[in-house]
Amino acid sequence: MPADTGERSPSAVGVTGVGMTAFANADDRSLLDLLAVASNRALSDANRSPDELDAVYVGNMAAEALNGRSGLANALAASLGASGVDGRRIENTSASGASAFLTGFDAIRAGRAERVLVVGGEKMSEANTETATEIISRITHEDEYAHGITLPSFAGLAADRYLRTYGVDRAELARVAVKNHANASENPYAQFDERVTVEEVLDSPTVAAPLRLYDCCPTSDGAAAAVLEADVGDVVVTSCEGATGVHAVADRGEPLEIESVRAAGEAAFDAAGIGPEDVDVACIHDAFTILEWLEMEELGLAERGEAWKLTRDGRTDVDGPIPVNPGGGLKARGHPLGATGLSQIVELVWQLRGEAPAPRRVAAPERGLAINVAGFGNNSVCTILAGVTGA
Amino acid sequence: MPADTGERSPSAVGVTGVGMTAFANADDRSLLDLLAVASNRALSDANRSPDELDAVYVGNMAAEALNGRSGLANALAASLGASGVDGRRIENTSASGASAFLTGFDAIRAGRAERVLVVGGEKMSEANTETATEIISRITHEDEYAHGITLPSFAGLAADRYLRTYGVDRAELARVAVKNHANASENPYAQFDERVTVEEVLDSPTVAAPLRLYDCCPTSDGAAAAVLEADVGDVVVTSCEGATGVHAVADRGEPLEIESVRAAGEAAFDAAGIGPEDVDVACIHDAFTILEWLEMEELGLAERGEAWKLTRDGRTDVDGPIPVNPGGGLKARGHPLGATGLSQIVELVWQLRGEAPAPRRVAAPERGLAINVAGFGNNSVCTILAGVTGA
Repeated sequence: MPADTGERSPSAVGVTGVGMTAFANADDRSLLDLLAVASNRALSDANRSPDELDAVYVGNMAAEALNGRSGLANALAASLGASGVDGRRIENTSASGASAFLTGFDAIRAGRAERVLVVGGEKMSEANTETATEIISRITHEDEYAHGITLPSFAGLAADRYLRTYGVDRAELARVAVKNHANASENPYAQFDERVTVEEVLDSPTVAAPLRLYDCCPTSDGAAAAVLEADVGDVVVTSCEGATGVHAVADRGEPLEIESVRAAGEAAFDAAGIGPEDVDVACIHDAFTILEWLEMEELGLAERGEAWKLTRDGRTDVDGPIPVNPGGGLKARGHPLGATGLSQIVELVWQLRGEAPAPRRVAAPERGLAINVAGFGNNSVCTILAGVTGA
Repeated sequence: MPADTGERSPSAVGVTGVGMTAFANADDRSLLDLLAVASNRALSDANRSPDELDAVYVGNMAAEALNGRSGLANALAASLGASGVDGRRIENTSASGASAFLTGFDAIRAGRAERVLVVGGEKMSEANTETATEIISRITHEDEYAHGITLPSFAGLAADRYLRTYGVDRAELARVAVKNHANASENPYAQFDERVTVEEVLDSPTVAAPLRLYDCCPTSDGAAAAVLEADVGDVVVTSCEGATGVHAVADRGEPLEIESVRAAGEAAFDAAGIGPEDVDVACIHDAFTILEWLEMEELGLAERGEAWKLTRDGRTDVDGPIPVNPGGGLKARGHPLGATGLSQIVELVWQLRGEAPAPRRVAAPERGLAINVAGFGNNSVCTILAGVTGA
């Protein structure tokens, strides 16, 4: 059975350039412009021009609904001057960015491309609130959607269960927001530049009890990008794996477990031949504060029921042994849906290169992990990167 | 620079199962149900169960805008019972289906998956005509969109130029529709089951002069699917390649040339190590009759300015030397945007296996080619398949 043998598969895929726009509540640039700015920054960082690209993959959740357009990859390739590339848009709701990254990783490892631009973006401010709320609500299982259960509702229920199950004080959860806002305040690309206190979190308006406004990520505009290349780069993609989980939360045996995060994490660790103890810095999908804990536990970065102690003890701070969300996370860097997974990659690359500004710079990390989650755990993508010193 | 070496890359990717729904002007099943029906038919054909899959990739153009939903891959994986798979949706406007196929091909060749379901679908009838027209119009370059130029307009201009440039009678173009309707009339999965005559085409209402209604594909509901596996199958994916072209038609040097079709075709032929003369059956993206000729010429299946003679002389008929669109093409099988690229794959597999019903069965083809085109040539994906006898 002969076949297209193509080029030899590369032995490694490197991240040679990254870039992003600042995330904002409302950016006056178009979605296409945001994507182009992030792309050009990543290309410039990689010291590559658009005509050197073999492919352009765009992560975006809802451009048809939010911005009335499709064919983003084709429009972007044209606007960059990258005609002739393989191009497509990838949608995996709030994990669209990481799925685009995985698409580029596969194309290079398949031997079909040598140099790929992956970029994610979303412009949520363009749509009216009703349209945006509706499309985001439809991420959940259709039976749960029909009952009016939204992502914040699920997060509130999970937070309540976690606090009660493990006897944790509500104020402990606020510390996740305090930490991530503090990190964001040192990140010029973050949507929020102000620190918050535990008291401010606890006094903010209730969204879905016990969660308050400051436990929840904002809606955002923004884009983030990375250039992937075969067999070069000072940061290497150690592994990248995706996994779906049980779609309806009601069908899950234990609501505090997020099967897709565990499955994607295990697959990524297996493929990398390392374990959670080898991770020096992590970007966790904290769309709600409680998710930072749940995902850390699924990934083995904390024992079950104990992630809250790591937060309390400052172990996930930038200067702790396992810094989590040094860029501010979804909570405070912002969450322009399709951009988020790639903004995690951007942050990890900056950290692995030692380029993050001093107050939020992790000390000499060798390996970084990112987990990007679709919906309330319908699908997760886990990426492990290594700097040259850790590779 | 160490890396995730993963599994050994396979030497070949086979298509082990295919299936589709009948295409229809309006199907009362939901988009998710259409995708599930096509998926289950392909899985059954491959003699595989959903829990044997490593990945599920969904090609769909506009579910957010047309059906108000995102996260299709996650919902489909859950509904099939394929939890734990890598999943994502791929959007490349009218070439979303072939881009999903390419995503699956890459995942297997990258050594990250052994068994992948790729499925494309669209339910256009659910949206009101205004919404559907608006989202399809936005495929074109934004400057051209702003001037009100739509895909039928471009096709009409191209048809007029072709007929005048090569001195071809308008009636010759009608023969493309006559042939494809005749083929569709023998295809139980096609939207149209009635033959048309040259006179009927010429007497149908004008859409964009000189194109008439019967020169244009319909709007459709439907889904089509394929199962890809490493190193097995009686049909093998010889190559699959995508390429963008100049986005704005006004920026193209010669409007009758479709750069992306040529680039994708050349890349696919190069990777396969064969030429156009080795193709025994072709599925061409005939959203408008004129496109069948233009694409044949770009792919080298006809000399420049001579495709019309192949149609006239019956050489593209099912019993001719280079049968084109034996399943009826977009013109008469129907064009449910995201499904189309995969319906081409389904047709080629049926032909390569000798399973197409007798009146439209091509005589012992060894190799088949499909070209799926986004917009008016913004992006094209070319796939070459070989049966075991031709491999």
